[in-house]
Amino acid sequence: MKKDFENVLSKVKEKDVKSIYLVGSGGSNALLYPVKYLLDIESKNLNIQMYNADELVHRNPNSLNESSVVILTSRSGETPETVKAATYAREKGALTIGVIEFDNSSLGAVCEFAIKYGWIDEVDAIDGNIGVLYQLSLGITSVLEGSNNFDKLVNNLARVQQIADNAKSKYDQLLNEFAEEFKDEKVIYTLASGASYGAAYSFAICTLMEMQWINSQAIHSGEYFHGPFEIVEADVPVIQLIGLDRTRPMDERAFDFTSTHTKKLMVLDAKDMGFEEIDEDMRGYLAPLVFTQLLWKFAYKLADYRGHPMFTSRRYMTKIEY
Amino acid sequence: MKKDFENVLSKVKEKDVKSIYLVGSGGSNALLYPVKYLLDIESKNLNIQMYNADELVHRNPNSLNESSVVILTSRSGETPETVKAATYAREKGALTIGVIEFDNSSLGAVCEFAIKYGWIDEVDAIDGNIGVLYQLSLGITSVLEGSNNFDKLVNNLARVQQIADNAKSKYDQLLNEFAEEFKDEKVIYTLASGASYGAAYSFAICTLMEMQWINSQAIHSGEYFHGPFEIVEADVPVIQLIGLDRTRPMDERAFDFTSTHTKKLMVLDAKDMGFEEIDEDMRGYLAPLVFTQLLWKFAYKLADYRGHPMFTSRRYMTKIEY
Repeated sequence: MKKDFENVLSKVKEKDVKSIYLVGSGGSNALLYPVKYLLDIESKNLNIQMYNADELVHRNPNSLNESSVVILTSRSGETPETVKAATYAREKGALTIGVIEFDNSSLGAVCEFAIKYGWIDEVDAIDGNIGVLYQLSLGITSVLEGSNNFDKLVNNLARVQQIADNAKSKYDQLLNEFAEEFKDEKVIYTLASGASYGAAYSFAICTLMEMQWINSQAIHSGEYFHGPFEIVEADVPVIQLIGLDRTRPMDERAFDFTSTHTKKLMVLDAKDMGFEEIDEDMRGYLAPLVFTQLLWKFAYKLADYRGHPMFTSRRYMTKIEY
Repeated sequence: MKKDFENVLSKVKEKDVKSIYLVGSGGSNALLYPVKYLLDIESKNLNIQMYNADELVHRNPNSLNESSVVILTSRSGETPETVKAATYAREKGALTIGVIEFDNSSLGAVCEFAIKYGWIDEVDAIDGNIGVLYQLSLGITSVLEGSNNFDKLVNNLARVQQIADNAKSKYDQLLNEFAEEFKDEKVIYTLASGASYGAAYSFAICTLMEMQWINSQAIHSGEYFHGPFEIVEADVPVIQLIGLDRTRPMDERAFDFTSTHTKKLMVLDAKDMGFEEIDEDMRGYLAPLVFTQLLWKFAYKLADYRGHPMFTSRRYMTKIEY
């Protein structure tokens, strides 16, 4: 993987880069929220944008041009809208980089560079989707703007799987209890902000809606008080993520409200997960990697209690043309 | 109003502007989606960003600095998080402009400039929230980058209230039928993309969740096929907006799917609303203004059928501290 990065970064260095576009669809789009957060803070002057792949192609924003680096991600590398977005971005003269789990994919073939990541259950977090996206994107800003945090990020990423493993043990019972408690719910909301919003979004649209046919919305902890919180009463199930990044006070405020207004609240607070092992300014970036693994574990438990398998229960996906 | 703009624009001209930040909370954040869309297309090189106000302050992105113009909007001008965001942005050296309905507000006092808009039921669309935000933001890019579409936008904005009025008559019966049909639903989804996504988002979080206590999510028409569409079956209520901007094909695709999988679909297609009166390249920008008025009318009807008043039925808002 190191070698792949080097080729990308030497190409990036040759370009007059003004913008970085982060592009994906659905669960892969969700991975880009922490990357946008990282770059908003670590990049000095670059224009950082994030789009659903199909929206990007149709919208065709002016600032995507030959001065852009476009990072596109898709697990299979066969997501049609994301492959199209790569073709579109190359035609506009941008440098395109695919971040993909599978080998020999269409997205990999269309992009100038393809970087591989490993599946969440099979590799350490540093080599998983967000881990690789972080290294790639901070690598790019480091080359372009001389950011100093690249080595620090990599060193800390190397320690995050141990934290995730410990958290999975520590929270096993809690996840089990809530999987049983939530198994018959018709609506479950997720709440998060900052770097961790994507983990809540992914869980809402992929796990709950797609894989479990449970109604949901990932509510942003800051938007919550401007409408959505009116839906919450004692029997409304909520999953609150409390991250460690700069937006943590928003999650804490949402928690304070929710914990006094519903009896069905599952809280995952990263401050109780052993992040003391991680350098303080890196903790917020890494919390979503642990949240994702905990929510994934929770998803399997929920699926078991519901008797609704995660990967084979589909009404439409892979079954019909759309 | 013209005079207010002139003062802002002459100040903008003095600045070396690299980025425009669009900032709001909840329903006012929703107004910024069409503005982001407009600027993504009409601006040549500016970095256009959009944030929930509280997220912005906590995240503190690097590129918000003395080269930024920050447009903040709030109906009352008293939204605490948005007022804080204005203070924050001024401290960072940005030029701050508040877009507010009420006079003598805290937001107006904190910002260098305050621009007034009128309430949706009381003024023509050109002087409403999106109308004013459009004029201000395109005015800024025109001054900075010499965009030619400002006069064209204003001329077309002046014609959109007539279209909205006609649409409100034409769709009165449809809105009435669906208000009755949807009155006892526990979950209603909205679907849209591009410039019109904000209208769907606002309806989901403010009208349905806040004012009617109905579960909802504004699903992006392009994200739909990557998870959320699995929730849709014959008895799931959906409101689909089909806009006239570049992303229309995504809404049409979502409509094609939804219309064959649920019997409870309310469609608002802007192509049937008399936009032939509007210059072709302006239609997409203006469709959200008409959608908003139709959805607002629908909201009153829904509230009536439910016996759940729009502005007085609140569990928490204005009633408790949070």
